[in-house]
This record gives sequence, C-alpha cells and structure tokens, in this order.
Amino acid sequence: MSSILDYDTVALDEQEPALVIIDQTLLPGEIKLLHLTKQNEIWEAIRTLRVRGAPAIGVAAAIGLYLAAREIETEERAAFLDALHMAAEYLNSARPTAVNLSWALARMERAARDFQGNVAACKERLRWECQAIWAEDIDVCRRLGENGLTLVKPGAGLLTHCNAGQLATVRYGTATAPMYLGQQRGYHFRVYCDETRPLLQGARLTSFELSSAGIDTTLICDNMAASVMKKGLIDAVFVGCDRVAANGDAANKIGTLGVAILAKRFGIPFYVVAPSSTIDLNTPTGEEIIIEERDGDEICEMWYEQRMAPAGIKTWNPAFDVTDHDLIDAIVTEYGVARAPYDVSLREIFAKKEAARK
Amino acid sequence: MSSILDYDTVALDEQEPALVIIDQTLLPGEIKLLHLTKQNEIWEAIRTLRVRGAPAIGVAAAIGLYLAAREIETEERAAFLDALHMAAEYLNSARPTAVNLSWALARMERAARDFQGNVAACKERLRWECQAIWAEDIDVCRRLGENGLTLVKPGAGLLTHCNAGQLATVRYGTATAPMYLGQQRGYHFRVYCDETRPLLQGARLTSFELSSAGIDTTLICDNMAASVMKKGLIDAVFVGCDRVAANGDAANKIGTLGVAILAKRFGIPFYVVAPSSTIDLNTPTGEEIIIEERDGDEICEMWYEQRMAPAGIKTWNPAFDVTDHDLIDAIVTEYGVARAPYDVSLREIFAKKEAARK
Repeated sequence: MSSILDYDTVALDEQEPALVIIDQTLLPGEIKLLHLTKQNEIWEAIRTLRVRGAPAIGVAAAIGLYLAAREIETEERAAFLDALHMAAEYLNSARPTAVNLSWALARMERAARDFQGNVAACKERLRWECQAIWAEDIDVCRRLGENGLTLVKPGAGLLTHCNAGQLATVRYGTATAPMYLGQQRGYHFRVYCDETRPLLQGARLTSFELSSAGIDTTLICDNMAASVMKKGLIDAVFVGCDRVAANGDAANKIGTLGVAILAKRFGIPFYVVAPSSTIDLNTPTGEEIIIEERDGDEICEMWYEQRMAPAGIKTWNPAFDVTDHDLIDAIVTEYGVARAPYDVSLREIFAKKEAARK
Repeated sequence: MSSILDYDTVALDEQEPALVIIDQTLLPGEIKLLHLTKQNEIWEAIRTLRVRGAPAIGVAAAIGLYLAAREIETEERAAFLDALHMAAEYLNSARPTAVNLSWALARMERAARDFQGNVAACKERLRWECQAIWAEDIDVCRRLGENGLTLVKPGAGLLTHCNAGQLATVRYGTATAPMYLGQQRGYHFRVYCDETRPLLQGARLTSFELSSAGIDTTLICDNMAASVMKKGLIDAVFVGCDRVAANGDAANKIGTLGVAILAKRFGIPFYVVAPSSTIDLNTPTGEEIIIEERDGDEICEMWYEQRMAPAGIKTWNPAFDVTDHDLIDAIVTEYGVARAPYDVSLREIFAKKEAARK
C-alpha cells in the first residue's frame, strides 16, 4: 500500500497544468490520483466529495480557478475579470455552504482585481496566488504539528476522533499533524482511532491514512474509548475542531465532548488542534454555536445491508457537539499553544497572528 | 405494530403443549410467535438465537426439557431419568457456554431425581418446575421494575445502553423493567437508547421493544449520549449487568463505563439493575472479571454492505467493560436498592435473599 505521505491531497501540476487530487471516493483501499483540467470535472470532484475537508476544498477551488483563468481568451482586463467571476460562481455552486470554498475563490478574485498588469501577467499572478494558498495550508498544518509535538513524548499512546487528517488538508492534517511529524522523526506513537458514528470518518479515513503512513494504528468503536483509557494506553487526546469560541469552548464532530469528559476522568490531557482560522473571537461562548441536526436515516440505514432500526423509530442526530473549555488542556494553533484562561490566551494568539502579517 | 407487552418472550402453551417464543431473528420489524414441539426445533431455536438473552434461554431450555420428558415412553424410573439426562445433554449442547442454560437444565433434572412418585407424576412435577422457573423470572423482573421505579419521577428522561430488555427475559426485562411498569402506570417516560456498537443491540432490540410498547423512544449513536445529557434531557441512566463484584464494580456491555463517566459529569444518577443471580460476592472487585475480546471483523465488516475499514487494520474489540463502583449511584436488585458502601449493602441484599428462601 502507498503511504498517504507520498502524495498531497490536493496540488497543482505545473508541467501539464492540472488539479491533482487523491480520489477520496475510492478510500479506504486505493490511493488513486486524478488529474483534472476541465471546469466541469473539477466542479464534479468537489460536488461528489472526491475532494473533501474544508481546507482541501478551498485549495482545490483556488487551483481550479487558476486553471479556468488560463482558458479565458480575451486580452481585455474588464472582460477577463467578468469571465473569471463567472468561473468562480460556477465552482462556488459545487458546495454552496462550504466557507473555505467561497473564501478561497474570493481571495483569488481579489488578487486578480488588485493586480495592475496585463491579462497574461494576471494569469501568472493567479498561479502564484493559488500556490500561496496551497503552501500556506501546508505551512499551517506543519506548524500545528510542531506545536502539538511539544506536548507529547516518543512512544506515547494517542487517541483521536473523526478525521482531522491529511485527507482534509493538503498535507499533515490538523489533529494528525503531530502524528505524521512524529512518524517522520521516529517517535513510534501508538494511535487509537474512534470509528466515529454515524458516518465512520475514523474508520474510513483516519485509520486508513495513519496506517498507510506506517503509524501503529488501532481502530475502535466510539464506546470503547473509556476502556482504552482505563487500561492506561492513552497519554494524550488530539482532536480537530470546526469552531473555537472566544472562551475556548470548541465545536467539533459529535462525540468529541464525550471523549473530553472521559479524558478528564482518567487524567489524560485533551488537546484541540485549531488553525487560527477556526477561532472565532466574535462568538463569546459555545452556547452561541448552532449545532446542525442531520437526517436520522444516517443512524438507521447508512452503510447497512438491512435497516437495523425499527421502522419509524424517532432519532436525534446532531452532527457536532461543543466541548466546554474546562475540559480542554490546551488549544494548539499555528501561532503557539494556548492554555486557560482562553479569553486571554486566544487574544494573544491573534496578536501574534497580526504581528506576523506585518 | 403489536406491543411487545402483549406477549412473553418465552412461554409454555399448556393446551397444545409447545414452547412458544418470539422469533428474534425477525426483529426489528415483525413480532412472530413460534410454537415449537420437537427437540431438534428447540435446539435450533436456541442455537440460532431465535431465543436469546441468558434468562430467556434458561426458561426456554427448561420448557424444552419438559416437552422432551412428555415424549419419553418408559414407565421405569431409572430408564426415564437416563432418557431425561440424554435430552438435557442435547439441549445443553446448543449454546455450550450459556450459564443459565445449564443451570435451568440441571434444576429440572434435580427436580426429577428428587421426586419420589411414578413417571407420569414426575412429568407433572417437571411441568410444575419449568413453570416455576418461568414465573420466577417474571417475578424477579417485576420486582426489579418496582424497586427501580422508586428512583424516578413521572415524565423523567431515561437513558439505557445495549439490551437489558424484555427480549432477554420472559417479561419486563431488567434495566427496562422500570420503563415498562412506568408505561403501564402512565408515567410517560422519555427513553433514549444508545445504538450500542458494534452489534447494535440498542438499535435492533431495545429501541424496537420499547417503542412497540408505546414508550416515547429515541435512538441515538453511542457518541451522542454526552450531548443528550448536556441538553438536560436525561434524569437517570438504567443499565443491566453481566456480573457485579462484591465491591459494587459492575461488568456490562462495552460502553457502559463511558456512559457512567458522562452521567457523573452531568450529575445524573447512574443505576445498575442487577438480578441477585448476577451478583458474585466471591469476586472481590471488577479487576478480577475477565473481559472477552471478540473478532475485529465485528467492527470492520458486520452489517456493512462494503467493508468500511482499511484492509488489515488493527482493531481492539472488547465485548464488556467494568464500571467502577464510585460511578454507580445504586444497584437495583429484586430484594431492594443497594447503595454505597456496596461491600456492606450487597451482603445485606444476600441476607434478605437467604431469609426469603426459608
């Protein structure tokens, strides 16, 4: 089996210009690279989750828009920008609610509008911009990994929930970044992956990508995490997050809150790995984060050969939960490790981010 | 849909002598009664889990042995007892490790050996004995329900894990007994069922039997229990158990420990419902209870149309866990409700049991 670390999840082939992605619909089992050049192929790849995970989608869209720009034939700036905008709208329609998708496309368009040269040079500017977005994603994940790695020792047992892995980013992932960097440095981590019901991202994606990289990986059901901890096999928990509030409350995949409570019981440090882009100082606490509730068929039917729940049974299927900040030992960002009180430390992280921009 | 409370899981039809069981291989979806008279049919029903759950298997075997005794044609006592023993050995081979199966068959044989009348009268004695085993099972569950019901108020939100339900006993179940008794008395409980990975007993059995009885039942994934508790929807947790140690540590289906830790975090009382037959004063603590580890294919493949985990992934699949006694607010038995310190209160329960026998 190929190692996931041999490839980026998303990249630009500069030789024969194309968007290169790992086709995630074939996982687990096969790492197949797709070279996409046509806009409808790229749109379809985003739409059908051949590329998924917020950061990876953003990078794919930026590369896709650069490829679109190359095909625009006018030399007239206003017409070029109009055509570029139409192409951006088209790509943006692939996943209408994906924030990173619209963010990356808007950043690309802004780069083009702010650029003062001719159309040919503007296309080069767009190539540079999509490569910058790609490189920044790798850089952020690598720094998350470096900072996370300061929290654990070689040989440690780590537990993670859902997929905050390389397959959601260009390289390294977020919660998995310390694991990959540790692997490259001979840390010999033992990683336990919650399967993560109902959609099984831990079984399908995380256990796949970590084991493909040669990491000692064990798949468990979500309800076995307490037993693994009780046996003394876990030294730290690393999870990703969808949004961190100003007080440190963190929204992440359903089940994360439970893992945090278990970790507290067993005295195991619980770390949230959060690119600063997920920290929202305008949301005071986790109570203001609205939790998406999804169709109960995901619990009753998905993946199963036969329906395993009685017909008409009532379900409750929240996609996320909020982990209270008192359960979080540290929030790992690309600008450093924040600890309680988070209302202070997260502002310090943002001050460092502002300083780095200048 | 028929209500599960309209039928016993296992019963003897005295009019046209037969073992009557709900065919559990057709659940969830259809409540079909089987009337079994032939020994090979009864053996097959136990073997293929048409009847399952330790207490229900014991009752089915006892009734099955009575039906076997009716067919023995000799009038000679020694020959009758020999033939009865052969029939018992045959039924016992259906599930070789089921303690209740061999216990019930041994009790039936002892009743026959201790009986001094002729063979025809001895057959009547065996009818009486299997009916006594059946009635005692109902009586124990009803008393578990009565005692459990003293711990909760009408309208309460209850959470349960796995299936300690009617389908594992003759009637009422153990952890579900307070729910059924409450339903009959208009308590209007709201019950949340963990689906219970990997074998989904909560989805397939518990949510089915409770909802069929008209109880307000909601199915959730195991990793959603923390969120339901955090929302304030749960007033008490009731779970069954496989074995309780002398200090109150309780072994039960994998995931029970995690639920107990969550309940503690949210200040929700956690109750273990334990027939006194599951309390083992000869096991000092939960540490001495050996946990069965099962095949990882249950996690990776079972129920799924396609394998959802990567080929060759390492798994850990313990079937049970041990909930530490400090997490248990009370142990509900048919002789009363035991509270900490359990090394004292469980002995008092056994003293009551001894007194009741005299």
